Amino acid sequence: MQARALVFDLYGTLFDVHSVARACDAAAPGRGREISALWRQKQLEYTWLRSLMDRYVSFERATEDALEYVDEALSLGLDASTRAALCDGYLALSPFPEVPAALERLRDAGFVLAILSNGSHRSIASVVGHAGLADRFDALLSVEDVGVFKPDPRVYALVEARLGVARASTVFASSNAWDVTGAGHFGFATCWVRRQPTAAFERMDQRPMRVVGGIDELARAVVGEAP
Amino acid sequence: MQARALVFDLYGTLFDVHSVARACDAAAPGRGREISALWRQKQLEYTWLRSLMDRYVSFERATEDALEYVDEALSLGLDASTRAALCDGYLALSPFPEVPAALERLRDAGFVLAILSNGSHRSIASVVGHAGLADRFDALLSVEDVGVFKPDPRVYALVEARLGVARASTVFASSNAWDVTGAGHFGFATCWVRRQPTAAFERMDQRPMRVVGGIDELARAVVGEAP
Repeated sequence: MQARALVFDLYGTLFDVHSVARACDAAAPGRGREISALWRQKQLEYTWLRSLMDRYVSFERATEDALEYVDEALSLGLDASTRAALCDGYLALSPFPEVPAALERLRDAGFVLAILSNGSHRSIASVVGHAGLADRFDALLSVEDVGVFKPDPRVYALVEARLGVARASTVFASSNAWDVTGAGHFGFATCWVRRQPTAAFERMDQRPMRVVGGIDELARAVVGEAP
Repeated sequence: MQARALVFDLYGTLFDVHSVARACDAAAPGRGREISALWRQKQLEYTWLRSLMDRYVSFERATEDALEYVDEALSLGLDASTRAALCDGYLALSPFPEVPAALERLRDAGFVLAILSNGSHRSIASVVGHAGLADRFDALLSVEDVGVFKPDPRVYALVEARLGVARASTVFASSNAWDVTGAGHFGFATCWVRRQPTAAFERMDQRPMRVVGGIDELARAVVGEAP
């Protein structure tokens, strides 16, 4: 079926969460990558576990909590103001290099474009605005409106409700294989943005319909298929 | 409030999931710990994510899927029969050394004892039987009966329904801090069995009511408090 809308995950897909690694490295020299990786892992775990326990908090709060865990687990001894400054890094992530031009091409080709993110409205607006990409999107959708995180189907259902495009006519693109899996079970056409070329796809009864190295590759493919 | 029942997590709490590391090491020499750790991580992630997507499969199936992921992610090249043999290791885990005697002491002191596990009935019975500990327990409770994994509250609700003991009179003991967190939110008295002395507790608005190094320490404490 012809794609009418493209919906993107934000963290790790359009924007590089490991761009906070540099700030982590400044706070704990030589340990930036290690901190950034465990922080991201715990941040995700807290979103999944809180969703299961029906104890939703904002993504910012889960991010702060995850860093507090990392601080203890890795014996970093970061003070509260350093932790707060590191968390602020999540409000000003860098887009991956190909993203701005690829989004422009998709927008010019007439696709409905949106972000569907675990972040709060405030976080999404901050990240997108900081990168100067606000004009690329028709909608910025946040889990905040349903009070549960991905991959709960209520999150993916926001897309049909807000964009008015059927799930089968929507390409959902994420670098997170578990997010692609949730989107596939929901009924979207899926695209796995394989940011790490050697990454393995998760085994939960889904395979991505497309696999691309970046958003430029996705844009070339779907613009080429346009009627 | 006086404890009447003690309910234990199985994997990692009474039984050592890393006892499969030796078999992993035989299959991929020098990499046993690395495989075992990633396998366990993915196994848990698949239980959480499948619960959120409402795509329950048995714990055995999640375990097989997780190993298939690990095989690709770590470029192990394990064949299907080797993977099946490694998965069978989860049916014959070793108990931690202090567990058999500590359970006997608790049973003799008159506590209601149970396991509440992500495993299927078949897996739980296999692990407990293999260790010769079946006579220690009043009940072996499996998530299979609710079709969702921990920390969904429906899992913890099995305890009251099956044991007839109020949640506030039940001590729930787990080495998994996220499981302790779920149990605490549900309303159990909680005990964190801190198998790794330097482990940090998860940050999701719960702290364990007790922290012990092993089940023997928990037994000494609660038997000492008995009326």
